[in-house]
Amino acid sequence: MAADDRPTLGIGMVGYAFMGRVHSQAWRSVGAFFDLPVRPVMAALGGRSKEATTAAARDLGWAAAETDWRDLIARDDVQVVDICTPGDSHAEIAIAALEAGKHVICEKPLANSVAEAEAMAAAARAAAGRGVHAMVAFNYRRVPAIALARRWVAEGRLGRLHHVRAQYLQDWIADPAFPLVWRLQRERAGSGALGDIGAHAVDTAQFITGELLAGVSALTETFVTERPLAGVSAGLSATGATAPAGGAADGPAGGAVATGTVDVDDAALFIGRFSGGALGSFEATRFATGRKNALRIEVNGSRGSLAFDFEAMNELWFHDHTLPAADAGFRRVIVTEAEHPYAAAWWPPGHGLGYEHTFTHEIKDFVEAVAAGVAPVPSFDDGLRVQRVLAAVEASAADGSRFTPVEES
Amino acid sequence: MAADDRPTLGIGMVGYAFMGRVHSQAWRSVGAFFDLPVRPVMAALGGRSKEATTAAARDLGWAAAETDWRDLIARDDVQVVDICTPGDSHAEIAIAALEAGKHVICEKPLANSVAEAEAMAAAARAAAGRGVHAMVAFNYRRVPAIALARRWVAEGRLGRLHHVRAQYLQDWIADPAFPLVWRLQRERAGSGALGDIGAHAVDTAQFITGELLAGVSALTETFVTERPLAGVSAGLSATGATAPAGGAADGPAGGAVATGTVDVDDAALFIGRFSGGALGSFEATRFATGRKNALRIEVNGSRGSLAFDFEAMNELWFHDHTLPAADAGFRRVIVTEAEHPYAAAWWPPGHGLGYEHTFTHEIKDFVEAVAAGVAPVPSFDDGLRVQRVLAAVEASAADGSRFTPVEES
Amino acid sequence: MAADDRPTLGIGMVGYAFMGRVHSQAWRSVGAFFDLPVRPVMAALGGRSKEATTAAARDLGWAAAETDWRDLIARDDVQVVDICTPGDSHAEIAIAALEAGKHVICEKPLANSVAEAEAMAAAARAAAGRGVHAMVAFNYRRVPAIALARRWVAEGRLGRLHHVRAQYLQDWIADPAFPLVWRLQRERAGSGALGDIGAHAVDTAQFITGELLAGVSALTETFVTERPLAGVSAGLSATGATAPAGGAADGPAGGAVATGTVDVDDAALFIGRFSGGALGSFEATRFATGRKNALRIEVNGSRGSLAFDFEAMNELWFHDHTLPAADAGFRRVIVTEAEHPYAAAWWPPGHGLGYEHTFTHEIKDFVEAVAAGVAPVPSFDDGLRVQRVLAAVEASAADGSRFTPVEES
Amino acid sequence: MAADDRPTLGIGMVGYAFMGRVHSQAWRSVGAFFDLPVRPVMAALGGRSKEATTAAARDLGWAAAETDWRDLIARDDVQVVDICTPGDSHAEIAIAALEAGKHVICEKPLANSVAEAEAMAAAARAAAGRGVHAMVAFNYRRVPAIALARRWVAEGRLGRLHHVRAQYLQDWIADPAFPLVWRLQRERAGSGALGDIGAHAVDTAQFITGELLAGVSALTETFVTERPLAGVSAGLSATGATAPAGGAADGPAGGAVATGTVDVDDAALFIGRFSGGALGSFEATRFATGRKNALRIEVNGSRGSLAFDFEAMNELWFHDHTLPAADAGFRRVIVTEAEHPYAAAWWPPGHGLGYEHTFTHEIKDFVEAVAAGVAPVPSFDDGLRVQRVLAAVEASAADGSRFTPVEES
Repeated sequence: MAADDRPTLGIGMVGYAFMGRVHSQAWRSVGAFFDLPVRPVMAALGGRSKEATTAAARDLGWAAAETDWRDLIARDDVQVVDICTPGDSHAEIAIAALEAGKHVICEKPLANSVAEAEAMAAAARAAAGRGVHAMVAFNYRRVPAIALARRWVAEGRLGRLHHVRAQYLQDWIADPAFPLVWRLQRERAGSGALGDIGAHAVDTAQFITGELLAGVSALTETFVTERPLAGVSAGLSATGATAPAGGAADGPAGGAVATGTVDVDDAALFIGRFSGGALGSFEATRFATGRKNALRIEVNGSRGSLAFDFEAMNELWFHDHTLPAADAGFRRVIVTEAEHPYAAAWWPPGHGLGYEHTFTHEIKDFVEAVAAGVAPVPSFDDGLRVQRVLAAVEASAADGSRFTPVEES
Repeated sequence: MAADDRPTLGIGMVGYAFMGRVHSQAWRSVGAFFDLPVRPVMAALGGRSKEATTAAARDLGWAAAETDWRDLIARDDVQVVDICTPGDSHAEIAIAALEAGKHVICEKPLANSVAEAEAMAAAARAAAGRGVHAMVAFNYRRVPAIALARRWVAEGRLGRLHHVRAQYLQDWIADPAFPLVWRLQRERAGSGALGDIGAHAVDTAQFITGELLAGVSALTETFVTERPLAGVSAGLSATGATAPAGGAADGPAGGAVATGTVDVDDAALFIGRFSGGALGSFEATRFATGRKNALRIEVNGSRGSLAFDFEAMNELWFHDHTLPAADAGFRRVIVTEAEHPYAAAWWPPGHGLGYEHTFTHEIKDFVEAVAAGVAPVPSFDDGLRVQRVLAAVEASAADGSRFTPVEES
Repeated sequence: MAADDRPTLGIGMVGYAFMGRVHSQAWRSVGAFFDLPVRPVMAALGGRSKEATTAAARDLGWAAAETDWRDLIARDDVQVVDICTPGDSHAEIAIAALEAGKHVICEKPLANSVAEAEAMAAAARAAAGRGVHAMVAFNYRRVPAIALARRWVAEGRLGRLHHVRAQYLQDWIADPAFPLVWRLQRERAGSGALGDIGAHAVDTAQFITGELLAGVSALTETFVTERPLAGVSAGLSATGATAPAGGAADGPAGGAVATGTVDVDDAALFIGRFSGGALGSFEATRFATGRKNALRIEVNGSRGSLAFDFEAMNELWFHDHTLPAADAGFRRVIVTEAEHPYAAAWWPPGHGLGYEHTFTHEIKDFVEAVAAGVAPVPSFDDGLRVQRVLAAVEASAADGSRFTPVEES
Repeated sequence: MAADDRPTLGIGMVGYAFMGRVHSQAWRSVGAFFDLPVRPVMAALGGRSKEATTAAARDLGWAAAETDWRDLIARDDVQVVDICTPGDSHAEIAIAALEAGKHVICEKPLANSVAEAEAMAAAARAAAGRGVHAMVAFNYRRVPAIALARRWVAEGRLGRLHHVRAQYLQDWIADPAFPLVWRLQRERAGSGALGDIGAHAVDTAQFITGELLAGVSALTETFVTERPLAGVSAGLSATGATAPAGGAADGPAGGAVATGTVDVDDAALFIGRFSGGALGSFEATRFATGRKNALRIEVNGSRGSLAFDFEAMNELWFHDHTLPAADAGFRRVIVTEAEHPYAAAWWPPGHGLGYEHTFTHEIKDFVEAVAAGVAPVPSFDDGLRVQRVLAAVEASAADGSRFTPVEES
């Protein structure tokens, strides 16, 4: 075989549920499509159960399994720690890894509280001084259509921005019989729809516009406050098994099933002002029946508008308002041309990408940044900024929806 | 000719601009498509200029012209007064007509202030006791797709309602060079996007859900505060002449053009709670470039969801969440079947209707109610209720977006 | 009232079913929206039954009723004869009217056979020499989006044309229990889907491209050969009453119902070559379940492409292939701008039109041509040319789908 | 690590261009998502240039490189030969592999001629008797939406089928300056759009309907007959480099560039009859500007209809004609539910798949069949049947579009 004289980059990943599976596919695939300056090596997978972690490592392509994340961090063959656990463990793992001199890529939301996020951001800043880097994994930035949207806004194609409307709509807990999974528990998840998917909407909106949310006015709601306890702490995949849409019922879960209290939001709505003067409208909910993973965003500027819906992730709709009115209209750009972000690495035009590719792109950008010794984005400070928006949303909702400035870092 | 022994119903209309033209088409057409119990007669048109009113009467099919609306009301051959003027004259004309024993149909918003709307609603209640009826013309209720949406919600097809998101997006003043037409002056129009199109969004949302907005948290904004004075007090039609999209500019209107101050909102955003527990998100703007007349509304319930966009007004999208998940999806119902509201009167399936038909339906319902001696809907009290929502929006926006209950009648 | 010193143009219309109703609405409305050089007067309506014709005249706004079309033609107050009857009577009425010096507008297809169409075209040519004009009513040419498509092709925006794919899809006879209405009888209708809707597809394709179909290869099929006899010779409107989609059955119509033979095509497919070198694919069917009135056409040229579907009649989709690939995509032009064909007469942008407006536009163009003494289009020769295409389709289908040139006039 | 005691299945792949890259991704990924009974091992990659093949093997994850496909076949660690070369070498490689006792998966179209395809099918039949299996890689069968379409047709949800319209539209050679790549040369590619993409349309239509095309009437055309010679024998990827849409020109390629003759079709249109009575309309072209990879298919049956477009590959549109007409419409089913074909292996609902996943599914089905000792589908006989359809298309086009039966095997 041809010699591959690139240096290697050893990866250790913690967690192998939904996020761990998709990160694994990204690590497995990235080298076949992008010409990286280093060769990523899937060194070790961290989990709690030895048996399950070992099986997962084998299925997902990791060379070893560790049952204590501290051991994973300590491995000599690990230079990067990829954190795919629920939010309650992010701070501890990330800070330890950074202090151990390992680069970190951490799933979003950065943490379950502003305090934790601040500690993480501080650790990342300190590590950066030692050439150790950290990134928060807002994968939707790496949807080619969203990256293209940002590019076009930055180029001035939209002119002065007036409106942003962003929604992240799902429906997997609309059925009251759906169980009390960890994502519905504040202790594990930090918040509900707000932190899980609203965080994506906020980051995507700030990313595309290049502006920050300055303040918000918010409402949150928990529609179903008691749910059956889940036998196993299941994730999104519990949907199929336990809540067939066909069995949607309006009443409370019946029978003698043990139940627990949902102490996070089912939905969060907020309006706000961006640093550059645009108005924003946001909504995150898991009760929008029929919307499966609808991260939708529209931006209206004086020179043009953009619209995107993740359910048709290969399309970006663009209205060029500088054209004569008789010629203008929203155009469906299929974001698979070689000139589009990330697209040249893949297939010919019209041969679309899927959800997992956003992670492959993210890993590619992360690896390139680390190899070049520059800070990957979004940084932990960026993640902290999103966390502060979420905190402002919760504060406003708790204070009669009063307009609440997002705290400056 | 065949004898037409139906009683006649004489109509007098005030105003012949945009609204007057479309009302005229409705009055001209309604009898050919609906089997009315009375025969409407287009008796007289009221305006200010004798020459212009006379010409308009001839072109639009009115038998006579009056230059003082008081004379129009006083005519013996007028039993119905149709008010198509700007909001600042609604109260005076409507109250006078009702007191003169004439039925009234009045364009929306009902008035430019809650106080005026209250006076009108009081007059309408008093008149009803004398068998004289009043209706506010929220024409979008008579879009067949919207009427169908209401029917399906009322039938329980959506189950418990969780979310309403309603937007009314236009772009005709996105160009700062667009002139200061009457719709941008508080004295004439009462408010900006809020009252002109936001009122429709509010009424449509309340109509479809059968619920009332209980309270709101709001932001409003005027993006362009100085505009060139309009040579002629133009309406929407000024768009084409003075603001070609191709000339969209970001800066202020240049040159030595005399300008005036825009003292109404360019955009209004609000979130709120409905009486039945649903959350609502609303947006009204004339700065959404590329959106021409996008009254969009989505409703998510536990058993299903609906979506509508007036730019495709013959379509209602319905997700039936009681189907197995593998079979479900938003379905595009083309609302032209004989069983759909109003549709049997028109053409075969798939042969769509246009904007003006909503007024024909409105007139049909109004005439049938008046002929039957029952109160047409929406009533002036309904119009007042919308006015109170608009007032709550403005109050919240002026009070740091604080959640503001809508005043009860 | 203001004097209207325009000359009048007296109209006599024959037939008051589906086509008669929509033509009446056009005659009633045209003057309120377009500034015509003459004033159309709805003088008389022709039908067979005195009672029914008189009632229809009253409802539809015609001043008089005639029960013999010869009497209608002979009236001094009739200068235009509008023929809205089935195809088997077109030739006789049209030729008599033209010979009597009356302008003629005749519904499509021009006739039930090439021979009849030739006689009509000859009569029209002769009449033109005497200043008497004839037009065949291919209303879809007056859909603003279709007129815009033609304009753009003529301007060269599509470059060299390579492909045309045109379909006219309906589903109103998919149910075998749907009765044997006149449109399913060769003696009355001439052909089935081919002449009724395929004719529109052919005319629209030729109109947009500015090219003629040079030859075709065809298949036709009658899926349901026996149908229940219709109690009343119903039109499309029989759909709702007798063939609810919910009752769709696959088997033959059951019971002791008397049946008759369908001797026209249920569907016609053909491929062909245009005079300019483009390839064409055509399909006309009434068995495309779920497609209600889907006249769809796509044109691909070297510099761009167009797509249209009548079920969203206010939209024209345009791909500008001269843009950089990364910027390009099909754009949804909402054809309601003042600069768009016919649109300035109606409502502001985004306030769409409906099916009937195509007839209002057609009448407007017809009246203007007649008043100016110029030949309206499409002419009877144009109608004959379409008829020759239909004949070539039937000839090819009868001859093993062999490529069959369209006969030159 | 956990022991993986599954037997291994050694794979040798020939060709590493577009198809080779996507097959590699499938082989790399399949085990992480599907629980296979054997463990595929990417043993060796075959190519012509030692250097290039070795580099490709390293990048794509193959353990070894071979520069003679005969050596690849002969390897002891290869049990499966995956053929990703142009069509002119399929027969030789496939037959040799089968005779050597290796299972074969071969890209489509099966061969460049019916004679070659017959030889291959005969070899496959003989090999099957020895437990050695062959499959032709019509990957679009493994689009979840297309597999779902087949399932629903097979379940009777569409009733009696009346219409199939299938198009495969691309635009990558619309520019006359695009070079003469191997896909435009009969010797290498066999035919043009017909075999490359039309073959997919035919296979997909037959797969979904479960019916065979019985006969066809066809037109083919070569719009651009001379093209610049390609410096390197490029594939689809030449599009970006040499034919920016922005430079689309109508004239011939200018300058002193050496040119060659295109001797395959640019476009093929045909209509036909299916074995079960449905009518079919087909079109394959690379000149449909703006359509990037639009494999579109609609099927209309008596009880319902389906519509699909690969450019939105995660969606299947279904009209249920057994619903009341007022409730019915095409519904957009997002084919990502656990109950949908292949979907349970991937991500939660609404998290769509991309082009490459169709190959992963194909490989999964192939491996499972081979491991179980059953014949994978589509078989070489299925591929031969498609080849006979293509031959009938070419025969009809050469014979005045005469209806030409597809030869029975």
